Amino acid sequence: EAYGWHVLRVGDGNDLVGIEAALKAARAEAERPTLVILRTHIADPAPTKRDTPEAHGAPLGAEEIRRTKEIMGWPAEPAFHVPEEARADLGRAVATGAALETEWHDLLARYSEAHPVLAAELKLALAGALPDGWDAHLPTFSPTDKLATRQASAAVLKRLVEHLPTLIGGSADLAGSTGTEIPGAALFGPKQAGPTVAWGIREHGMAACLNGMAAHGGVRPYGSTFLVFADYLRPSLRLAALSRLPVILIGTHDSIGLGEDGPTHQPVEHLAMLRATPNVVVLRPADATETVEAWKVALRRLDGPTVLVLTRQKLRVIDRSSHGSADGVRCGAYVLREAEGELQAILIATGSEVGVALDAADRLAAEGLGVRVVSMPSWELFAAQPAEYRESVLPAAVRARVAIEAAASFGWERYITEAGEAIALDRFGASAPGDRAFAELGFTPEHAVQAVKRVLNRSRA
Amino acid sequence: EAYGWHVLRVGDGNDLVGIEAALKAARAEAERPTLVILRTHIADPAPTKRDTPEAHGAPLGAEEIRRTKEIMGWPAEPAFHVPEEARADLGRAVATGAALETEWHDLLARYSEAHPVLAAELKLALAGALPDGWDAHLPTFSPTDKLATRQASAAVLKRLVEHLPTLIGGSADLAGSTGTEIPGAALFGPKQAGPTVAWGIREHGMAACLNGMAAHGGVRPYGSTFLVFADYLRPSLRLAALSRLPVILIGTHDSIGLGEDGPTHQPVEHLAMLRATPNVVVLRPADATETVEAWKVALRRLDGPTVLVLTRQKLRVIDRSSHGSADGVRCGAYVLREAEGELQAILIATGSEVGVALDAADRLAAEGLGVRVVSMPSWELFAAQPAEYRESVLPAAVRARVAIEAAASFGWERYITEAGEAIALDRFGASAPGDRAFAELGFTPEHAVQAVKRVLNRSRA
Repeated sequence: EAYGWHVLRVGDGNDLVGIEAALKAARAEAERPTLVILRTHIADPAPTKRDTPEAHGAPLGAEEIRRTKEIMGWPAEPAFHVPEEARADLGRAVATGAALETEWHDLLARYSEAHPVLAAELKLALAGALPDGWDAHLPTFSPTDKLATRQASAAVLKRLVEHLPTLIGGSADLAGSTGTEIPGAALFGPKQAGPTVAWGIREHGMAACLNGMAAHGGVRPYGSTFLVFADYLRPSLRLAALSRLPVILIGTHDSIGLGEDGPTHQPVEHLAMLRATPNVVVLRPADATETVEAWKVALRRLDGPTVLVLTRQKLRVIDRSSHGSADGVRCGAYVLREAEGELQAILIATGSEVGVALDAADRLAAEGLGVRVVSMPSWELFAAQPAEYRESVLPAAVRARVAIEAAASFGWERYITEAGEAIALDRFGASAPGDRAFAELGFTPEHAVQAVKRVLNRSRA
Repeated sequence: EAYGWHVLRVGDGNDLVGIEAALKAARAEAERPTLVILRTHIADPAPTKRDTPEAHGAPLGAEEIRRTKEIMGWPAEPAFHVPEEARADLGRAVATGAALETEWHDLLARYSEAHPVLAAELKLALAGALPDGWDAHLPTFSPTDKLATRQASAAVLKRLVEHLPTLIGGSADLAGSTGTEIPGAALFGPKQAGPTVAWGIREHGMAACLNGMAAHGGVRPYGSTFLVFADYLRPSLRLAALSRLPVILIGTHDSIGLGEDGPTHQPVEHLAMLRATPNVVVLRPADATETVEAWKVALRRLDGPTVLVLTRQKLRVIDRSSHGSADGVRCGAYVLREAEGELQAILIATGSEVGVALDAADRLAAEGLGVRVVSMPSWELFAAQPAEYRESVLPAAVRARVAIEAAASFGWERYITEAGEAIALDRFGASAPGDRAFAELGFTPEHAVQAVKRVLNRSRA
């Protein structure tokens, strides 16, 4: 009641008439969600275990089952007795359900005849499919631009909502900061059906709503918050992964680059936490162009949650005329910058650290060292590629590898070989302007150059 | 009010008289926590940014600051003007604080003279130190016993509360299941000071309370729940790690071995999540004896949270007369079973999978293969050991290594070398009796034997 819910109380959990009345009252309530409170007895009417915790955590046991059945007037055999009355009720429910389904199909058929275009759109939406041309209007970015990937995501989202009416989402009270404030878009609410939702400071509630929306179908739900606050929604995100629900989560302010808010707001272990969770796809794009591709991956995915990990700070837009195409995002990792001459070492980076890797590779090239830069926005997508593709990006013979990621090193041994190094952060962050935090904590081209040289010496030894 | 709090409203956040009255009323309330609600204006009295979100996310800017100071009647310079009135008030607060501190020291001195034993106990408790003999009464277990590590933990806890009065804790409504129900111990509450707390189904609230208790000092707080529900308390656990608070968290039902509750209750990614978090020490003991040692580590740690990861299912107690001493727990990993003859391969396991590794090693020994078993209850403690110790447990020259852990493989590359293998679980679990889940998902001695043979072939190639 304090939260504004419509609260109904049915005294006795076996009061079928009372329950039916409560359900009717709930359906009649058009403004508020309804909570129906029933009082029941666990393991009722088991003679000794009724209302005891044992009835929750363990089977009743043969003797207690025998006596319970006796009390209920049921026969001891068969083990799973179904009373005639229950069977008859179920039979009626089956018939009612079949009639309702036929009614629905008839309605849909009449609707399809009367409104073929709208009906096709509805069926597409219910299938989770994307309409033709949904991605024809996505923005492109020029190497003269400099923008945060959260800003690139905002530009993508602005176009998407115009062409993809099923896309509904918002933020946990961080719309402006996460780039999910869509200019002119109406807010979804009891009186209107706008594409944006204001969840308030309720990450867990937001993620639970996304799950419900995805399970219902017909819409493509997304939510957003700072990446560090993914901690608050982890239980619901796990359920999305387990239930194969196609929800999209935007986590911005993704590293120690976010500025003075300091360690409470700086995710360090969150990439590892998300990557370790089965059936979650994590994408950490390196620039605005990769962000567009990351959104495409997220929207095409129908069997589990996708997390877009975005920066607060501005990043330069990588010149694709001289670098690998951002199409590679869908493969999880790709060659962004090829080594001049002999391929001697590989720099692997994600997100904002890809720029650091590119600068380091340039410096190493100037010293005559052939270094490839691999952008690896998604471990999960890369792991799902055929072995030949993976070998083409990270050839087994090239053992000198350095990974750069402003987060826990945990797990990077998978890609850097035993001769390699990870420039990572196995401590909490620090409060400082983003550039300074990067420099002080070692995420600089100089540092990467030194690491590549160390690793080259080690792998030759 | 709905939660039973004492709620006070002060209309105007600048009403100092009203605030003082509310604080006095709060202190006078002996039964309930108090919430004082103030209405304030963000950035008051900035002329254009007052009551706007910009005032939250960015500095006001020079011109707005100039005009704000003008409105307040403050001089433009210096940048950080302190009004005389504030300075005088602070001066009084300093004097009051100094007087209160002197008063406290005097009181403590008089108390120490009148009650030297109690005072010494109090000082010890405030320092977080453990009294002499605190660990003299801990249980020991025999190889003929078979018990879950949660049961061993319950036995430890029962003895600890008798000899360590500062140990206060409980569970999030899972006292029986997590082994934190202490027979005869009074429940902590408004009317009594028992050592156990019933937090209800509120993992986040429990972990926040542990942080507050640890920050206050004088007590050693612990909380417990199922490991999978650590998801619900992650934000508070992260804060404990960041704030270096010595809280102890017990996470039971730690793998797919827990039984039919199925994947919603089976942690898979949680060990990785905890290990990736800076300043968290995770301990997953292999048997009852290691559980005793894990508790000792947890209680001796004063600079961050420790998580004890325990089984629901019974495990045999390892015979320490023929195996490595459980003292090794404090080093994070140790040689539990030495290879007969030449050391050819190493099996590394944690928790309930150590038994699987031991069985596999026996079978391999019967085939003439020298396999060492390393029990690795804590990655963090092992990583903190000197290089010589680590080399003695996992010699670099022994490249044939197999890790066994019923959880995500994520991160295990750190210990198994490129020639090695991890028998792990990169998917969600399944609902089945524990033994069957272990067998179906590959956590068997047979499977480990095959993996060691594969790895031996590979490392020789």
